[in-house]
Amino acid sequence: MSLTQLAESRLFGGRQLKFEHFANTLSCKMQLSVYLPPQAETQKVPALYWLSGLTCTDENFSVKAGAQRIAAELGIALIIPDTSPRGELVANDPAYDLGQGAGFYVNATEAPWTAHYRMYDYISRELPAILPVALPLTQVKSISGHSMGGHGALVLALRQPAAYRSVSAFSPICQPSQCEWGRKAFSNYLGDNVADWLEYDASALLAKATMVPPMLVDQGDQDQFYPAQLRTEALIDAAASSGAKVDIRFQRGYDHSYYFISSFIEEHLRFHARYLFE
Amino acid sequence: MSLTQLAESRLFGGRQLKFEHFANTLSCKMQLSVYLPPQAETQKVPALYWLSGLTCTDENFSVKAGAQRIAAELGIALIIPDTSPRGELVANDPAYDLGQGAGFYVNATEAPWTAHYRMYDYISRELPAILPVALPLTQVKSISGHSMGGHGALVLALRQPAAYRSVSAFSPICQPSQCEWGRKAFSNYLGDNVADWLEYDASALLAKATMVPPMLVDQGDQDQFYPAQLRTEALIDAAASSGAKVDIRFQRGYDHSYYFISSFIEEHLRFHARYLFE
Repeated sequence: MSLTQLAESRLFGGRQLKFEHFANTLSCKMQLSVYLPPQAETQKVPALYWLSGLTCTDENFSVKAGAQRIAAELGIALIIPDTSPRGELVANDPAYDLGQGAGFYVNATEAPWTAHYRMYDYISRELPAILPVALPLTQVKSISGHSMGGHGALVLALRQPAAYRSVSAFSPICQPSQCEWGRKAFSNYLGDNVADWLEYDASALLAKATMVPPMLVDQGDQDQFYPAQLRTEALIDAAASSGAKVDIRFQRGYDHSYYFISSFIEEHLRFHARYLFE
Repeated sequence: MSLTQLAESRLFGGRQLKFEHFANTLSCKMQLSVYLPPQAETQKVPALYWLSGLTCTDENFSVKAGAQRIAAELGIALIIPDTSPRGELVANDPAYDLGQGAGFYVNATEAPWTAHYRMYDYISRELPAILPVALPLTQVKSISGHSMGGHGALVLALRQPAAYRSVSAFSPICQPSQCEWGRKAFSNYLGDNVADWLEYDASALLAKATMVPPMLVDQGDQDQFYPAQLRTEALIDAAASSGAKVDIRFQRGYDHSYYFISSFIEEHLRFHARYLFE
């Protein structure tokens, strides 16, 4: 359960940290990045979990999004996990959209994935249990993510609305049960019973939700994966049918890249801060 | 001379662009990143040239520094060249600190480097000639850089003080004639006559300078290359002996990484803006 520190850099007066630990839920060693704002030197701070997209590790958001500047101002820790279990002994696939780097934040039920691919439990149970013990964090948290990680953030918050004060997403895969990325991943990880897929489908979950945390979604209208893989309209329809108040915005001219994330991450952090410090 | 656009992303309301062009000074194809702020849609804007460090391309600063947010606010274009000539036909060395990715912003005089390694001319002459023709840029410019690129920025501004409104550097190699990186690069590119090296040594140039543009230097005190490779004290001594007013700051706890740059890039851009818009 203990965290081994691999790296530390001063950043906006706080500390960008990289850790390695053995994840019990995943049965493998994992790397994890954490940003602790200056406020964490003298008090416990709330956390924003960030879930990254296909092919990413904990490094992409850490170096590209520019989030730490605002986290330092607001006094929010950033928890940045990897996107799948890792290692030579962990099942993999040569495609970029299955296996390592593509965990899809589910608990796999099918061979050969069951032994390690339990990212849902890793993010929702294991990290929130161990991190506030090892680091100056309160139990208060929100969650955000990009693309596959936007899907993960929405699913975790919709399934466990009491666990997250707020949720946001950039370019999320809104209806994985109905797009190529999601059907490939879910049929491999979860098998052929589509009813099981819907437990990890944000649009299906939102349509029947009775409790929805404050939710903000940004989608670029020049995104190369919109609409086919992302199906933003399904989330809009689900919000309408559930009556949930969800802020889904289209941003004109923006694509799927971290340039889009960096342009709006400040608004997302300020959105989360409203609820993290309530 | 024409620029071929390879990529474009919307970023903070402006445009992050990637170009390829044949560089006459370098006799090879080069890639180049440019950020045009929103103001450039309707008027010409001044430019900040950014010179990157060893092993970097035009991508590192583009994705890691978070500079575009402030450039968008201030109305400054960012010009982000590669760090050396490139290609299979261009001389190279297996070490990270010589050859491709390590041009050191000099005009080489020694074989096998003379044919392509003319980064001083590329940055100081060719790009300022072609970019304002192809893009909505005024002739007004400043220059900054990191590590090897901090060396380059200081040298260019000290040798051509009328060409740059201001200069700044992060963790620059302040006295390359006296450190391992510099001695290796200069003996290969320039030969054994140390007098030739001093034309590319910021401390030597500053010590005898009669005209010095406004200059800001930031150096982290936890930088793994300080003091041996960077020799910041030589620049401080040179400023004292020339009587030039130079702001050289040590930042406590910061290392050599882009996390350091991102923490202070806003101050550097606001420093340059004072002179770019004079």
